[in-house]
Amino acid sequence: MNYLASSQSGKIVLFGAPFDGTATFRPGARFGPQAIREASQVLETYSPNQDADLEDISFEDRSDIELPFGDPQPVLDIIQATVERIVAENKLPFMLGGEHLVTLGAIKALVPLYPGLKIIHLDAHTDLRDDYLGQKLSHSTVIKRIADIIGIDSIRQIGIRSGTKEEFALSKKIMATPADIIAWAKKSPCYVTCDLDILDPSVFPGTGTPEPGGFYFNQLNDALVLMISKLNVIGLDVVELAPQIDPSGASAVVAAKVVRECLIALGKK
Amino acid sequence: MNYLASSQSGKIVLFGAPFDGTATFRPGARFGPQAIREASQVLETYSPNQDADLEDISFEDRSDIELPFGDPQPVLDIIQATVERIVAENKLPFMLGGEHLVTLGAIKALVPLYPGLKIIHLDAHTDLRDDYLGQKLSHSTVIKRIADIIGIDSIRQIGIRSGTKEEFALSKKIMATPADIIAWAKKSPCYVTCDLDILDPSVFPGTGTPEPGGFYFNQLNDALVLMISKLNVIGLDVVELAPQIDPSGASAVVAAKVVRECLIALGKK
Amino acid sequence: MNYLASSQSGKIVLFGAPFDGTATFRPGARFGPQAIREASQVLETYSPNQDADLEDISFEDRSDIELPFGDPQPVLDIIQATVERIVAENKLPFMLGGEHLVTLGAIKALVPLYPGLKIIHLDAHTDLRDDYLGQKLSHSTVIKRIADIIGIDSIRQIGIRSGTKEEFALSKKIMATPADIIAWAKKSPCYVTCDLDILDPSVFPGTGTPEPGGFYFNQLNDALVLMISKLNVIGLDVVELAPQIDPSGASAVVAAKVVRECLIALGKK
Amino acid sequence: MNYLASSQSGKIVLFGAPFDGTATFRPGARFGPQAIREASQVLETYSPNQDADLEDISFEDRSDIELPFGDPQPVLDIIQATVERIVAENKLPFMLGGEHLVTLGAIKALVPLYPGLKIIHLDAHTDLRDDYLGQKLSHSTVIKRIADIIGIDSIRQIGIRSGTKEEFALSKKIMATPADIIAWAKKSPCYVTCDLDILDPSVFPGTGTPEPGGFYFNQLNDALVLMISKLNVIGLDVVELAPQIDPSGASAVVAAKVVRECLIALGKK
Amino acid sequence: MNYLASSQSGKIVLFGAPFDGTATFRPGARFGPQAIREASQVLETYSPNQDADLEDISFEDRSDIELPFGDPQPVLDIIQATVERIVAENKLPFMLGGEHLVTLGAIKALVPLYPGLKIIHLDAHTDLRDDYLGQKLSHSTVIKRIADIIGIDSIRQIGIRSGTKEEFALSKKIMATPADIIAWAKKSPCYVTCDLDILDPSVFPGTGTPEPGGFYFNQLNDALVLMISKLNVIGLDVVELAPQIDPSGASAVVAAKVVRECLIALGKK
Amino acid sequence: MNYLASSQSGKIVLFGAPFDGTATFRPGARFGPQAIREASQVLETYSPNQDADLEDISFEDRSDIELPFGDPQPVLDIIQATVERIVAENKLPFMLGGEHLVTLGAIKALVPLYPGLKIIHLDAHTDLRDDYLGQKLSHSTVIKRIADIIGIDSIRQIGIRSGTKEEFALSKKIMATPADIIAWAKKSPCYVTCDLDILDPSVFPGTGTPEPGGFYFNQLNDALVLMISKLNVIGLDVVELAPQIDPSGASAVVAAKVVRECLIALGKK
Repeated sequence: MNYLASSQSGKIVLFGAPFDGTATFRPGARFGPQAIREASQVLETYSPNQDADLEDISFEDRSDIELPFGDPQPVLDIIQATVERIVAENKLPFMLGGEHLVTLGAIKALVPLYPGLKIIHLDAHTDLRDDYLGQKLSHSTVIKRIADIIGIDSIRQIGIRSGTKEEFALSKKIMATPADIIAWAKKSPCYVTCDLDILDPSVFPGTGTPEPGGFYFNQLNDALVLMISKLNVIGLDVVELAPQIDPSGASAVVAAKVVRECLIALGKK
Repeated sequence: MNYLASSQSGKIVLFGAPFDGTATFRPGARFGPQAIREASQVLETYSPNQDADLEDISFEDRSDIELPFGDPQPVLDIIQATVERIVAENKLPFMLGGEHLVTLGAIKALVPLYPGLKIIHLDAHTDLRDDYLGQKLSHSTVIKRIADIIGIDSIRQIGIRSGTKEEFALSKKIMATPADIIAWAKKSPCYVTCDLDILDPSVFPGTGTPEPGGFYFNQLNDALVLMISKLNVIGLDVVELAPQIDPSGASAVVAAKVVRECLIALGKK
Repeated sequence: MNYLASSQSGKIVLFGAPFDGTATFRPGARFGPQAIREASQVLETYSPNQDADLEDISFEDRSDIELPFGDPQPVLDIIQATVERIVAENKLPFMLGGEHLVTLGAIKALVPLYPGLKIIHLDAHTDLRDDYLGQKLSHSTVIKRIADIIGIDSIRQIGIRSGTKEEFALSKKIMATPADIIAWAKKSPCYVTCDLDILDPSVFPGTGTPEPGGFYFNQLNDALVLMISKLNVIGLDVVELAPQIDPSGASAVVAAKVVRECLIALGKK
Repeated sequence: MNYLASSQSGKIVLFGAPFDGTATFRPGARFGPQAIREASQVLETYSPNQDADLEDISFEDRSDIELPFGDPQPVLDIIQATVERIVAENKLPFMLGGEHLVTLGAIKALVPLYPGLKIIHLDAHTDLRDDYLGQKLSHSTVIKRIADIIGIDSIRQIGIRSGTKEEFALSKKIMATPADIIAWAKKSPCYVTCDLDILDPSVFPGTGTPEPGGFYFNQLNDALVLMISKLNVIGLDVVELAPQIDPSGASAVVAAKVVRECLIALGKK
Repeated sequence: MNYLASSQSGKIVLFGAPFDGTATFRPGARFGPQAIREASQVLETYSPNQDADLEDISFEDRSDIELPFGDPQPVLDIIQATVERIVAENKLPFMLGGEHLVTLGAIKALVPLYPGLKIIHLDAHTDLRDDYLGQKLSHSTVIKRIADIIGIDSIRQIGIRSGTKEEFALSKKIMATPADIIAWAKKSPCYVTCDLDILDPSVFPGTGTPEPGGFYFNQLNDALVLMISKLNVIGLDVVELAPQIDPSGASAVVAAKVVRECLIALGKK
Repeated sequence: MNYLASSQSGKIVLFGAPFDGTATFRPGARFGPQAIREASQVLETYSPNQDADLEDISFEDRSDIELPFGDPQPVLDIIQATVERIVAENKLPFMLGGEHLVTLGAIKALVPLYPGLKIIHLDAHTDLRDDYLGQKLSHSTVIKRIADIIGIDSIRQIGIRSGTKEEFALSKKIMATPADIIAWAKKSPCYVTCDLDILDPSVFPGTGTPEPGGFYFNQLNDALVLMISKLNVIGLDVVELAPQIDPSGASAVVAAKVVRECLIALGKK
């Protein structure tokens, strides 16, 4: 299964957002999307878990968008325009990060288009700081920036185990299980943003800000497949693979399997 | 515990089959046997789990056999001859891979010698393709080649989580638990082939084709020790360690501990 | 949270003991303390688990003590003097290894000062050999040397899964659970020595002598926090991180989180 | 300069031959072509050395051809057919290895089409063995196989510093400098095969069989640019980058710069 | 020689500028200053080349300044303020990068203070682009930004071997040898900015944008020592070590030796 | 050429001394001898440079001697006894380190046996400190310890570029070229000790204490072959390969080629 090899056209549009300019500990997430494509070659297209095959799913891969490095504002503008274009084509955006700030560009595109949009945030970190050393645009403030737009009550969090005391005061109110979230979101349009550092570093060392004590692979996979199957998901991202940090390549394979399972869960419906 | 250090003679014969010419994603399993020997130095000879000591087990290590690179047919012939020679000495072959195709050489030697032979296959992948890009001899077709010789009903699989839809149609019929297998095989001669990628990549990243969502160490170890203790095992292999893929060396230590536990379980009886 | 950044003074005194001269398989633990400080930057100071913040804990970091390489006796003398000085200041020593032999220097300082001292030893290995190739001072004999001073009945072990048959004969008598230990030690002064190889190599590959089949992060963390909260801990060490063995850096982050949780558990009381 | 990014059509046809099944020491050259494309992004398209720009050169990149793993004969057949097709389109083949055996497939295609073909072989090793452990098709026999077809007098070697005594007896007769070769080949059609291990391991560690004491970058680059400029080159290959062996990525950048310089030298004329 | 260990005060002020947000190929230069300090431990303080000892040089290390990640403008403002403060103390700034854009912050501080300031730029790349994908602030535009302030005639370049055709048209006019530069600058105040990728990747693989065909260690070292000895150097930087790209650590040692030699050459006078 | 594979008996006796307990910066030289054996497989037995074949040389490999870790005195005693035994068999010792301190054990054995013994020391470092943090036995004091026994006038040094001012005062008196040394030593018995960090880190990054600005491969190789050919060499060592520091493996290959060339130069006579 090599996404790049496919020249097909489809309903779900994968694209890479290779930006990592605000990473606070270790950069390198810019190499995430390409590493996912390369690692996808080790996987079969068939998912025994969902008894379905990626070859039967309507999707396309538009490769990485070209992004500048440095000031993040133009980067977010390009991502926003990319997502607007995909939705205008009546397709569903599936973004591969890149660091987590890229999600803000997608949300800016989607909020006006999907009234009542809800955000489902899987992560080890709350990402609810108001700024990071004065910077308002950071991978550690991205959910706060989204909350500024959409209200914190439209967000639910899974997997959180790191933040400041102040962040946890906020986060505790919106922590939820997949079952809670399905009951809460009902038919609303949902955007799922999955920071792969929700996984335990043993499973996923290849990320800039690992946090011990996290999810195992099947735990994350089951949560994603369940929520995507039950909810009205209108957009998705998988972020924060920094592949060069894990020289074994296992982290990239984990990310590629998460992406396959999400594609199949999205497309089966 | 350094196998190489031992110049002893014994009933169980370890040997390395350093071939990786058909690896479909990442080669390097040729370095597996030597890495197992080196990693064995970090382990004690005593197994608290089995309350027995490797020093009381009758085994020898014949080091790696010399294999050419390229066309796999002569490689399989050399392995077959090696196994035939070991059995002719009234000893039990324990092969360290190398990639999984090496198992075919061993099976070719053993089938005529052990009527009613049964194969117990531990792996993440079905290995039941009929060919890989036209090649009949591949580490992704090895169990199909063995089934061609011995019949698929003489095979049972544990740990499978990757394959094509067609492979799973076959594999589902022969998936089993260790308890099922003990009941099924009874007194029959059994060959155990353990592809270490049955383990989760967090436990065993050092392999060419990692597949997330796998076994933990004790889960594999308990299954092997149980089956070896209860069954009439007449040959064994442990394959697909590609040590350079895991620069921490942990994968080689995992493989070495699996080998120690198998040696003790085999020899205690 | 960067320990080095802090120029504060406090009740708990962190210091590094960068020695690895007796490591039997792979050296490199000398780089452990500095790697813990650097990795601590990725962690928040707040512990959601204990609902407490490192910023409210009275501690200081005295950086690494200068140690020679080679003969371990002068190394142990320097560590002993360092710990004596800390206790003389009415402070609590928290040593970052370095290999496990460094614990002996600390214990030599503490035994005369704390009658009835008990040792709580978390490790994969018994460390109860009497010598290693003739050397009495080794990271594989350290608990035996301590038992020579304090008596084996004053020691309890958690997590042990590797040793010789002779070592296990001893070790079995002193293996215990955290609950057992709390009941046993009561109000006695306790020293906790935590060899991080108690963790499974999937969680903590960055150590000289990994042993498959070990603890997961939360299992270790919960045991440490529970025991520190309930016992009269008068000294502590965390040893055997060899960071360069794990190029992903995850092991250093795991060690840094263990240290944060211990500091908070010690300081909250 | 990212070859992959270009969807242009051109006179020179790059393609990757990702095969490494006969590598005698360390495999991994299958990843060479893709690594060259990725590393090419760090380079400018302009060559100050040749004062010319890759953007003015007529070339295209057909990406990697799909090759099976295992028996090398079908691999060579596919390469031969690929080169025949390129020449039939009146274009010039420029193959990126892969291991050195891939050259044999290209030569088999070209010999019937270019009477009087001459081979210019840059390498650390003679590659003149008749077999390797019985295998006739090996990266260490490839020049001997070519000599079997075309005669050893049609071959010249540069950079050789490793071989058996027997190989050197042959090789000494065909060792030459670039100036010698220009005088010798005159207007004849020439094929240049460049095994990058001609470079010193300090410059190019990322190869399966490094040999100390080799060429520096400018020494190789100047030789290639000079010969390509002066000779009637009708085909070219650059082989034996095994990128994962050099985690710094410098070897891939070196290979990409060699490829850029060859493309410009070929296309300027 | 560990800079960090020194709590001395001195005339030359080292400080780290750990920013890498505009790196166009591979980030990681933020870890450069700390890696230089750690690597400095392997070096002696005595320079046989200059027959002088760092212990006799008046310098201090103010460690890394705290910089945000993301938008580079506030980063440059902090660097500018830092350099202004150092000069106000009548000391000489010696900045350790970080990526090359950090130089712009220093120059902005120095231009008003040193009329007739000249810039000596050692690098593989011209860094004379006007923008990179629209971004005016980039490590590939930094010398153009400086030329915008000070005029290109106040700049001289050494070691350049990569750029666009347009950049080379400019660069050719200001390329010079150390001897040329000494004759040109005379008594003028000079700022030396040394991008370590001027070195050949064999010597210095640990950098984001390696360019084959560069300087050897002694060639760079001799040029720097000569120019610093002869010129009126009022500020200096050494940038673009990305240490994690070179797992051998050799690149960090090379950088640390360059820094030692510059400190001694600056301080001897 | 795999030394281990050979079960031959010969005049020159290779053995490994896997000790690294006094390494001052980065340990790991204990893995040097085994890495040299493994890397030797990539090399041919024939030396084009000397036009001679290792297969015609009378040598044997006794593998690694077993050494304890910790206090270096018993280690040196074992090495001394090993060398005494080899000379008693009328054979020539060729030790593979390990760190440089191992040389002291060999010299202690040889001084009483060879009156007028001269030491030829190739190294980047003088190794003439009297102690290192109080330790008299250290890899940075080894030549001083030897000078204490044999007198500094019986030693000559090549390649030195690092030391304290005090060490250089001594070292300058005994620095020499190979030609100087041949003239000086005449027919005296000579011991050659080659610390591989004499090489530039670009050629040999795999060592604990790299020092930029060193020898290239052919420069070292020519010096060794010349001196061994002309002098009465009665013992030899090659030390300080720490193979895990260079993940490309090139350093191990460099060491193996140096060893091959020395074996041939020694044995040809």
